[in-house]
Amino acid sequence: MPAIDPAAALGLLKFDSAGLIPAIAQQHDSGEVLMMAWMNRDAVAETLATGRVCYWSRSRGALWRKGETSGQQQRLVEFLIDCDGDTILLKVDQDGVACHTGRRTCFYTAARAEGLAVIEAVKISPEELYGK
Amino acid sequence: MPAIDPAAALGLLKFDSAGLIPAIAQQHDSGEVLMMAWMNRDAVAETLATGRVCYWSRSRGALWRKGETSGQQQRLVEFLIDCDGDTILLKVDQDGVACHTGRRTCFYTAARAEGLAVIEAVKISPEELYGK
Repeated sequence: MPAIDPAAALGLLKFDSAGLIPAIAQQHDSGEVLMMAWMNRDAVAETLATGRVCYWSRSRGALWRKGETSGQQQRLVEFLIDCDGDTILLKVDQDGVACHTGRRTCFYTAARAEGLAVIEAVKISPEELYGK
Repeated sequence: MPAIDPAAALGLLKFDSAGLIPAIAQQHDSGEVLMMAWMNRDAVAETLATGRVCYWSRSRGALWRKGETSGQQQRLVEFLIDCDGDTILLKVDQDGVACHTGRRTCFYTAARAEGLAVIEAVKISPEELYGK
């Protein structure tokens, strides 16, 4: 996709007191919700400029170019902002798997009447993802 | 759906320093991401027990039974927890519209190369939703 000037989006977005905003990633064609992570202003600007999704890692305190270690990148298809300007929905094309456990989505645990259930199998082992 | 004992889910969930956790609502059959809001422990417990989605309103500082004013309720279909336990994905059946602007989804503004674009029309006027 073409590079997008981030000025308009940044003017609409409301970052929290830590300078962050939640971003949901959804596979653009299947509709699968893959993960939720956080962005700061730099991550938003880089994502729009490059078309490759970049988050802010709260644990590492650094920009996190999704897939930089695992190879499982996300290409931006559509960048959506909610009515309050305080949440982002990224429609993406996910390479391989989004979750560090090797599953397609991070949302693989269901709370059901019979208890917690793991409803998705591992597709790529974490050793294969991170051991290279 | 049957009532779900919240103990197992609450044992897995990590609430932030304000006692809240983000919850994404997705229409269970179409895959449409409708909104993102926040839950506290009581909202999680009530949602699982009743099968009707209840959030925590940060602006009002009170439980927010989705649709209590507008009539646009969300019935819980599946309650999913992510790999880190710090985000919830609710698969729901949404009555009417999820957004207070009268749109089906809150994510109706796209950041594109040509600028911001509103990509969804209002389906029910806010006056009709809240004026009754």
